Amino acid sequence: MLISKVIGSTVSTVKNENLIGCKLLILRQADETGKPFGKPYVAVDTLDAGIGDLVLTAHGSSGRQTTQTKNSPVDAVIMAVIDHLSVGGQVSYRKE
Amino acid sequence: MLISKVIGSTVSTVKNENLIGCKLLILRQADETGKPFGKPYVAVDTLDAGIGDLVLTAHGSSGRQTTQTKNSPVDAVIMAVIDHLSVGGQVSYRKE
Amino acid sequence: MLISKVIGSTVSTVKNENLIGCKLLILRQADETGKPFGKPYVAVDTLDAGIGDLVLTAHGSSGRQTTQTKNSPVDAVIMAVIDHLSVGGQVSYRKE
Amino acid sequence: MLISKVIGSTVSTVKNENLIGCKLLILRQADETGKPFGKPYVAVDTLDAGIGDLVLTAHGSSGRQTTQTKNSPVDAVIMAVIDHLSVGGQVSYRKE
Amino acid sequence: MLISKVIGSTVSTVKNENLIGCKLLILRQADETGKPFGKPYVAVDTLDAGIGDLVLTAHGSSGRQTTQTKNSPVDAVIMAVIDHLSVGGQVSYRKE
Repeated sequence: MLISKVIGSTVSTVKNENLIGCKLLILRQADETGKPFGKPYVAVDTLDAGIGDLVLTAHGSSGRQTTQTKNSPVDAVIMAVIDHLSVGGQVSYRKE
Repeated sequence: MLISKVIGSTVSTVKNENLIGCKLLILRQADETGKPFGKPYVAVDTLDAGIGDLVLTAHGSSGRQTTQTKNSPVDAVIMAVIDHLSVGGQVSYRKE
Repeated sequence: MLISKVIGSTVSTVKNENLIGCKLLILRQADETGKPFGKPYVAVDTLDAGIGDLVLTAHGSSGRQTTQTKNSPVDAVIMAVIDHLSVGGQVSYRKE
Repeated sequence: MLISKVIGSTVSTVKNENLIGCKLLILRQADETGKPFGKPYVAVDTLDAGIGDLVLTAHGSSGRQTTQTKNSPVDAVIMAVIDHLSVGGQVSYRKE
Repeated sequence: MLISKVIGSTVSTVKNENLIGCKLLILRQADETGKPFGKPYVAVDTLDAGIGDLVLTAHGSSGRQTTQTKNSPVDAVIMAVIDHLSVGGQVSYRKE
């Protein structure tokens, strides 16, 4: 799973029928302190995550292992909202 | 999913039998403003997307989760045409 | 799918039993003009492609969605030989 | 599989129901001497690995081939704790 | 598939039960002349490959398409030992 920060949202009228009602958020991968890096990508949100949240995303066929994404053409899903991260015995990130 | 811009098309006479009638477009990944970067790749278009459209693409086995791509040797599909993208509360891209 | 150029071939005596009779070619990814870049990789050829051909390759489990590669430990297959590519309304590559 | 070093842990209250009771650790890929490099990622621990351990991780759908991760939206699992690594006939890493 | 050179081996006492008796080798990706590059990774050996051999590896779910790796949490398998590689009509690598 990737540690990622939710930075935005997408709107699409023309889309695959399985995606109707599906919330597609824009994310960037982040490090253990929550600092984002790299290019944006899009994942399905099944946990009502908000902009600015640090989350974990599962990719590939694993992105389809939720009730909402099963059998859909999606390859990334938010499967956890991070409360805190610890590295080397120290809290490196804590949700505000 | 990747945010990608449709930049061209491909023509192949010799191809896997499951791809007959399948529209294969050339794309480049794009950022949240729609600016393309990186090398071109090819995805199946099931939504009648046009050159210049910003779209979302699903990859790997997720690219086979549509009626048109099921059981075919394809690993990327356009599953949404983007109307607009918002980042940090601002519209970063809007379809013309 | 990746646009790739066929650059060579492989010979293996010791191999998985499912690969007996399977043609394994060496390719390099290419851009929309057919110019190769990056490191070589190997894909199964099910279309009798030749050295120098520009082709499309499907990867991961999608590489197993052909009669020849089903249930085999292979993760890339040539599924189309490219006749021509068009970018921005111009032909960027044409097979000789 | 990737050689990776366990560097930390994650805590999430809001998560997919299949992840309840699931231990999610933070890792960084490592070389054959155990030296970590690159950005952190997260994997499910099914082997009671500890911080500082060098482990092997399986990715993608292979990350779901354990009793604990089956049918869950997870794409990486720790499937071995490394005792030692040998390269070129020499021990390059030994667990302390 | 990736062209890779076998450079070493791993020993693990604590591991997933499906991996008992499974030979896990350390490899580095190689070019068409057999010259290795990049960081090491680990694959299951089902062909009794030796240190120094140039091999082909299949990744992801394709790594599980052998009798030994079926249903196991492994994402890479050696599926061919290379005798020789030809690029541009010339032998670029030959096994000694």
